[in-house]
Amino acid sequence: MCRWIAYRGETIPLEDYVTAPVHSLVVQSQRALEATASTNGDGFGMGWYGEHAEPGLYREVRPAWSDENLRYLCRHIRSHLYFAHVRASTGTPIMRPNCHPFACGRWMFMHNGLIGNWSRLRRKVEALIPDSVYGSRIGTTDSEAVFLAIVGAGCDRNPIGATASVLATLTDMVSTKDYKEPLRFTAALANGRDLYAFRYAANDNANTLYYRESGTSVVVVSEPLDKERAHWKPVPPGHMVVAQADKPARLEPFPVTQRMAAE
Amino acid sequence: MCRWIAYRGETIPLEDYVTAPVHSLVVQSQRALEATASTNGDGFGMGWYGEHAEPGLYREVRPAWSDENLRYLCRHIRSHLYFAHVRASTGTPIMRPNCHPFACGRWMFMHNGLIGNWSRLRRKVEALIPDSVYGSRIGTTDSEAVFLAIVGAGCDRNPIGATASVLATLTDMVSTKDYKEPLRFTAALANGRDLYAFRYAANDNANTLYYRESGTSVVVVSEPLDKERAHWKPVPPGHMVVAQADKPARLEPFPVTQRMAAE
Amino acid sequence: MCRWIAYRGETIPLEDYVTAPVHSLVVQSQRALEATASTNGDGFGMGWYGEHAEPGLYREVRPAWSDENLRYLCRHIRSHLYFAHVRASTGTPIMRPNCHPFACGRWMFMHNGLIGNWSRLRRKVEALIPDSVYGSRIGTTDSEAVFLAIVGAGCDRNPIGATASVLATLTDMVSTKDYKEPLRFTAALANGRDLYAFRYAANDNANTLYYRESGTSVVVVSEPLDKERAHWKPVPPGHMVVAQADKPARLEPFPVTQRMAAE
Amino acid sequence: MCRWIAYRGETIPLEDYVTAPVHSLVVQSQRALEATASTNGDGFGMGWYGEHAEPGLYREVRPAWSDENLRYLCRHIRSHLYFAHVRASTGTPIMRPNCHPFACGRWMFMHNGLIGNWSRLRRKVEALIPDSVYGSRIGTTDSEAVFLAIVGAGCDRNPIGATASVLATLTDMVSTKDYKEPLRFTAALANGRDLYAFRYAANDNANTLYYRESGTSVVVVSEPLDKERAHWKPVPPGHMVVAQADKPARLEPFPVTQRMAAE
Repeated sequence: MCRWIAYRGETIPLEDYVTAPVHSLVVQSQRALEATASTNGDGFGMGWYGEHAEPGLYREVRPAWSDENLRYLCRHIRSHLYFAHVRASTGTPIMRPNCHPFACGRWMFMHNGLIGNWSRLRRKVEALIPDSVYGSRIGTTDSEAVFLAIVGAGCDRNPIGATASVLATLTDMVSTKDYKEPLRFTAALANGRDLYAFRYAANDNANTLYYRESGTSVVVVSEPLDKERAHWKPVPPGHMVVAQADKPARLEPFPVTQRMAAE
Repeated sequence: MCRWIAYRGETIPLEDYVTAPVHSLVVQSQRALEATASTNGDGFGMGWYGEHAEPGLYREVRPAWSDENLRYLCRHIRSHLYFAHVRASTGTPIMRPNCHPFACGRWMFMHNGLIGNWSRLRRKVEALIPDSVYGSRIGTTDSEAVFLAIVGAGCDRNPIGATASVLATLTDMVSTKDYKEPLRFTAALANGRDLYAFRYAANDNANTLYYRESGTSVVVVSEPLDKERAHWKPVPPGHMVVAQADKPARLEPFPVTQRMAAE
Repeated sequence: MCRWIAYRGETIPLEDYVTAPVHSLVVQSQRALEATASTNGDGFGMGWYGEHAEPGLYREVRPAWSDENLRYLCRHIRSHLYFAHVRASTGTPIMRPNCHPFACGRWMFMHNGLIGNWSRLRRKVEALIPDSVYGSRIGTTDSEAVFLAIVGAGCDRNPIGATASVLATLTDMVSTKDYKEPLRFTAALANGRDLYAFRYAANDNANTLYYRESGTSVVVVSEPLDKERAHWKPVPPGHMVVAQADKPARLEPFPVTQRMAAE
Repeated sequence: MCRWIAYRGETIPLEDYVTAPVHSLVVQSQRALEATASTNGDGFGMGWYGEHAEPGLYREVRPAWSDENLRYLCRHIRSHLYFAHVRASTGTPIMRPNCHPFACGRWMFMHNGLIGNWSRLRRKVEALIPDSVYGSRIGTTDSEAVFLAIVGAGCDRNPIGATASVLATLTDMVSTKDYKEPLRFTAALANGRDLYAFRYAANDNANTLYYRESGTSVVVVSEPLDKERAHWKPVPPGHMVVAQADKPARLEPFPVTQRMAAE
């Protein structure tokens, strides 16, 4: 089980959330509190938006806590919208293209969870990726495949709809008449202006997700970064945080179920 | 364009061919003579058979010339059948699962060449891999996909036939009426007892391949390891070296064309 | 605080102690029981003797648990005397030359512990290394410096005496009239035939050390590899295990104090 | 022999010199023109100044041409004063702390050259580093040792004087009555405001160095980044480029000889 943070708001150095807090993401890489895997040492990654339309990425197979480059970059890179992720592999190889976040055009995505029996579902999920996007599949994770399926499902026009649509399809895949497999999806999606964070599960409990607002800024996290628990609001299962540019963050139901009912 | 060596014969330390010769594979990683890419620094790998039925692998993203572990391992690991490969990427990411050789059960494979327009053909080639073997696809190269297709085509029963069959299919894929794309396949395949080395191309010139026999031992190489050119026999295009256990090596036509004509 | 194992006995695959046991060294890299650092993910290393007079080394900055090469090598490399070590850095950089074990000629060494205030003592300890050996200093750890000082103190003639002599000097360095700094030294030293393992501390408690004999084989470990606690004998502080070729292992006092009293 | 570039001027993305030009530094990593080592694949590094007083560093052991992080960082990081360096090791290990540039407080340094017989001189050069700075020695290169000696010689008060003083001492070390060893020093030094670049040698030819001015900006390089040779002015041996904040760059004699004559 991985840990991540996503930030959108005033332009700040990445270090403010990645390395500085008492229970920062780098601290969580060595000892997470609300995760079944106590160590998240199977690589890490950061992605951020700056003046360029496409995000920057820095991904590395070493644990976050032992990477001296990470400290320098967090101190020097400033952004109004950024992601950071520490990985605990659920089986796929530890290589940079399997580290989160993933980028495709101006979109960026990261994930904590798993897609049922991946070895059984892999080809079906990969088949959801349209040819126009398949060239961006440079790793082998379930997370990257789901992201590219979302991009292919019309993320540019309707990011929430595309995500809900793909998750509804995945929910069907893991829920056959004969057996059910767990699907856990706690993910962040952004396009340089807007940030979406989802907490969802089928056939299992959803992984934890919290957010904190401060002025026009919002930070979404797998687990709180400090002891001030009162500031961190839990995102309920089946819900999402929508933090669009220049607007306050909204907590809303993630419309997977509605869509599924409508079908 | 990569460089490789394959050895089958008396049990010897890997260093005898990987690091010791004047123009050893490690030297070729920094400066190859018969290759279009003068540097083969995009990772490397070794695979070898020992007492265990399945081969050992050592793969690394650093250049072969700069890896101190490689020197120790080549001095200490002894084998009767081993592969070594230095990579010059044709575009797929530089990560360990994309380094050669690849292993699947007792089979081991490495490749120098390319499959036409890989981004266009990738899905078609991946579709040749049966479900039973698809879980072994941990990288994203054309080479690994072709290997798993060969394993899936009945490598255990008939390794030459399975390889020829897959190559015939690939030849069809790159040779449509409207346009032709290059297919270059200079590869080695082994099962712990027998070694097969192929030199083939469609719509292009085949990459170089040489072999040298000495007693009951045979070594097959992308380019000669020393100045004694007379000892190194070229493998003609469309031919293969068959070095089965306890038998002298044979040079034979690689039956792709026959099969294609027969169909 | 690091974790290590050292083995001398029948020739066996490295996997028998490094990866196979319930609480193997690789498991300890992710979760050690008797260590203050619960994770030992700051690189790892193995060293072994084979037919060559000098040991082989494999060292890597990634955590042991995430290195696929490690599993292959442990299955395929066999040895009558080998070391393996998982590192929790006490401050020096995470790079291969700072990973244990260290080798110098036919000698090999690894360490769990620390040398007081290293930044204050570093130059003094480095000054103990004679010029003839200083070229072998390729890293920056206290452990490597102590090893090279031991080699320089006459390891070839008298390994126990050389080690005791250097430790007596170090004990003086950390014990001035005005203040005392901790010195913890739990280390293994070997020359291809004989294995020595030391448990010592000054101004602090010694790190744990256990050993287990089985026939003519002996394995020395930071902490037991399985639940059969009765088989694992603790090495008392200030003692050492001497396992010379073809002889049963002996538990003896580590003669640092005697030497210091004699001076 | 390494290759490097140093820039001081308008704030620009690092990519303008590191990855974009026809013969950019990344291209030079694979094929340099004016160097004896055609490949500079033994790691690389970048250092830059931003809003923080101390520089940021990104150093990696992989070749520059194969690092996808490098491309993202060069596109997203902007600076008014930055260094980039591709390394061809002269023997010291390939590890991040041996990659250039080096940083100490607000100072940053990189080097192309060598210090005579390093294994013989190493201890003498390390002895030039004062205790107050010795804790910053985290690698083992001659270059880092020389840098820390320069910092220790009063870089803050008089950077040119400190550099000339250390180089005069080094020149003495490599020039004994009985034999002479080559000393080649083509280096850049900066403090966040001012850039100094030196071309010097003793007992050998100096490595190449060029610079180009454009408005208030100056870039200093091991070899020209494009075919417009007329724009690139060679720095003569024994000279330096002084590019202080808000002033045009000046070409001046590097006062090693003067100082030596004065003593």
